[in-house]
Amino acid sequence: MIDGSSTTPARERGVRARRQRDSQRTHGVIAGIERQIPTYELLGEEGLVRIEAAANTILQEIGIEFRGDEETLRLWREAGADVDGELVRFPTGLMRSILKTAPSTFVQHARNPERSLKIGGRNVVFAPAYGSPFVRDLEGGRRYGTLVDFENFVKLAYSIPWLHHSGGTVCEPVDIPVNKRHLDMVAAHLRLSDKPFMGSVTAQERAEDSIEMARIVFGREFVDGHCVIMGNINANSPLVYDATMTKALRAYAAANQCAVVVPFILGGAMGPVTTAGAIAQSLAETMAGCALTQLTRPGAPVIFGNFLSSTALRSGSPTFGTPEPALGSLVVGQLARRLGLPLRCSGAFTSAKIPDGQAMQESTMSMLAAVQCGAHFILHSAGWLEGGLAMGYEKFIMDADFCAALHVWMRGLQLDDNQLALDAFREVGPGKHFFGCAHTLANYETAFWDSAVADNNSFEQWRDEGMKDTATRAAERCKRLLAEYAPPKLEPAIDEELADFVRRRKAERPDQWH
Amino acid sequence: MIDGSSTTPARERGVRARRQRDSQRTHGVIAGIERQIPTYELLGEEGLVRIEAAANTILQEIGIEFRGDEETLRLWREAGADVDGELVRFPTGLMRSILKTAPSTFVQHARNPERSLKIGGRNVVFAPAYGSPFVRDLEGGRRYGTLVDFENFVKLAYSIPWLHHSGGTVCEPVDIPVNKRHLDMVAAHLRLSDKPFMGSVTAQERAEDSIEMARIVFGREFVDGHCVIMGNINANSPLVYDATMTKALRAYAAANQCAVVVPFILGGAMGPVTTAGAIAQSLAETMAGCALTQLTRPGAPVIFGNFLSSTALRSGSPTFGTPEPALGSLVVGQLARRLGLPLRCSGAFTSAKIPDGQAMQESTMSMLAAVQCGAHFILHSAGWLEGGLAMGYEKFIMDADFCAALHVWMRGLQLDDNQLALDAFREVGPGKHFFGCAHTLANYETAFWDSAVADNNSFEQWRDEGMKDTATRAAERCKRLLAEYAPPKLEPAIDEELADFVRRRKAERPDQWH
Repeated sequence: MIDGSSTTPARERGVRARRQRDSQRTHGVIAGIERQIPTYELLGEEGLVRIEAAANTILQEIGIEFRGDEETLRLWREAGADVDGELVRFPTGLMRSILKTAPSTFVQHARNPERSLKIGGRNVVFAPAYGSPFVRDLEGGRRYGTLVDFENFVKLAYSIPWLHHSGGTVCEPVDIPVNKRHLDMVAAHLRLSDKPFMGSVTAQERAEDSIEMARIVFGREFVDGHCVIMGNINANSPLVYDATMTKALRAYAAANQCAVVVPFILGGAMGPVTTAGAIAQSLAETMAGCALTQLTRPGAPVIFGNFLSSTALRSGSPTFGTPEPALGSLVVGQLARRLGLPLRCSGAFTSAKIPDGQAMQESTMSMLAAVQCGAHFILHSAGWLEGGLAMGYEKFIMDADFCAALHVWMRGLQLDDNQLALDAFREVGPGKHFFGCAHTLANYETAFWDSAVADNNSFEQWRDEGMKDTATRAAERCKRLLAEYAPPKLEPAIDEELADFVRRRKAERPDQWH
Repeated sequence: MIDGSSTTPARERGVRARRQRDSQRTHGVIAGIERQIPTYELLGEEGLVRIEAAANTILQEIGIEFRGDEETLRLWREAGADVDGELVRFPTGLMRSILKTAPSTFVQHARNPERSLKIGGRNVVFAPAYGSPFVRDLEGGRRYGTLVDFENFVKLAYSIPWLHHSGGTVCEPVDIPVNKRHLDMVAAHLRLSDKPFMGSVTAQERAEDSIEMARIVFGREFVDGHCVIMGNINANSPLVYDATMTKALRAYAAANQCAVVVPFILGGAMGPVTTAGAIAQSLAETMAGCALTQLTRPGAPVIFGNFLSSTALRSGSPTFGTPEPALGSLVVGQLARRLGLPLRCSGAFTSAKIPDGQAMQESTMSMLAAVQCGAHFILHSAGWLEGGLAMGYEKFIMDADFCAALHVWMRGLQLDDNQLALDAFREVGPGKHFFGCAHTLANYETAFWDSAVADNNSFEQWRDEGMKDTATRAAERCKRLLAEYAPPKLEPAIDEELADFVRRRKAERPDQWH
């Protein structure tokens, strides 16, 4: 937004930048963000090599179980792994050799081309939180999520330019049968938004339905040659992939669509209680999942995912937004760069039940680690509460506001003559104020990040306006955004074909509720 | 706390580490923290040189006014600066040449030697917020601070091991005359705590009283050879130092005590609206103040300070914890390292009026920038609200808890065999849980940071325990800490001499109330 050139007169630059900003506010088109700042390198070469060696030992000596999926075992056998029943061990070097075909960057296409996203390189993508059975807002409290809630979060993510991606299961619509939810969810992403999105992974047929719906909108041939949908694949840590996940993974890869491969490691439960060990495990598990996409279809897009958490010592409860996973993220970023794979990392994690001080302290630490570690795709960027059990409306707004701040932060510092402002010092001199000087007038509208949620007014103003806390202000903004929402255009023929597909698939199957 | 050696059996290490932790919890002796992680380098050489060149231009061409202090002008004239009335211009290279005598590290001694602090190098010190006229807690709301409040915050900082320093004007005790407050404040730091502290700077005689009180406790000769007190000196930005500040600065330096030199730059008001220019100004102003300490007494300890803020575009209000100052901190850290001076940076800044989501989001971003930029002395680490106008009791507890998290974060990642946990993987294998395994038992008590404020319990537990928000839990902890507070020992003769000094000085002067 701030133009580095100093050939344009300052005032004109100000006007142009303002127009640009207003246009972004109105149309909300920001196709990801290109990071201008360096990543934060925590470990040196020696430390990284130690962790990679530990991951290699896990892969070679202990191995990973692939349960209930003969085709996956066949692929590993053919690739040269040591397959013993369902336990697969991997000679050192095998993973990295297989992963050579995985692209280091790719584009996830949106149905609105202006919203297509580059994944990898210097690009960073923010996506909403994923997978909560509950939702929460100030008025209604905590309750099970419904399709209405799901659609609301898709609308909010569409309305907020700082979220580049529509996400996937933004909450569980528990009022819809388990085996039919994916149809309504994917339809909502495709109809109510034109940003990139994620499909279902909870069964092979649901993954295939999701991809099929994308084909209706993007065209069968286009989909075969381009990534238009992602599926989020969890390892069943420690060191297990179950058939549901490998079959969904293979469905996405076979269709040339992106699998996001993510272990879910709570230290002391699904992994060791020490962070270095959990990172080594994460590296081993993720490499295995990513490699499986390449065995299925060499060159298929894949994202190297990471989800580390800590545990409360007294209760055994999982904790989020704590320092250990933040350090872990920084190291995982370094490891992913050495593999040359796009990285998914953490997000606005917290174990808080409401969007209060704890929630934002933990979320801020977690999000900053994700951005600083060099993550390319940051799922759970907005809305996360209760360790992922609840999606918060106000939290969503507050987190998205921090995503806006991170856009400015990742742009880094400009150092042209206008930014260094020597002329301003010459104009103002010692002891005077910069309020009205030419440099301030030319720059002030674009100089500083402008929060949509923070209250920077005086105590007296804040008091006279009702002493609202952040969550209350966020609730007001949330209602305004939903009231102002207008859906993006979708060709009626495509809309009808989608509806027809959903109707047909729903009619073919009896409802399942668990 | 986590021992890297792998020659000690894991279980014994666990016990030892637990004992160590318990002892820290009980006695609260943590003399600063030694950072094990690298700093975050934002700019490359070329960018840093550009900013340094801009600062040199400001110093040489525009100059800095030193108002109403003939002795300071005389010192500059003698040092080779160009003195024109009260405006002083500095040939390029003069500052850096004068600053060569400033120590890159020094010790601020505490009256309890176990709490003495290394300032500089890899050491990081957290100190409470400074200077608020108002205080706030959940029960009493917002009100003017009193000496009781002041003493409460000194007691709290003493009780919390993650705050290494007692701070200075932790709040303004407005119930005490302006010209006598410093006596009660310094007495409180010396009596109610045994951590290092800061004295008064609001008049030369108050600075000298503060140092004199330190001499009573530490001994006259010791004080002349060792740093035992700090004074926080503000430039009157832009590009002015007034006589109150230079006289206080010279009082501290002449006594071989530490001046913390800090411009206070709100972008668009006391400095340009662009961050790069504000950084250049900050560098110029701070170098001038630091150099003045060395002209006063070569070798006197001094801290290079930094206080950047942004402005809300619509209202002109100052904003805190926003991305621009966070970037600024990272760059100032690089500049201070190139000067070889210890750095003071930001803190838990926010413009929020209450310790809610905004407060902790802004504070976390600001504190992380301070720690990542390599700051050695972080004033305003706990309590800050309303852009510094109010000191919050609950905010103090919440911020101090984040300071605890930062201790773990700055310790970085250990990579010994115990941490890499390969034996744990061998014991547990695929698909099993790590809950009861030997590695978990040996490590779990020290594995993860344990927050004193966060609620990590399930929703149901949290609900059944009264659905308390973070501030409510912090208020409970605050009351407990104050109830359990017991003062450190002080020799009765010294205590009496202090009291006598305070009585005498108070009797010598009529009360001043503004």
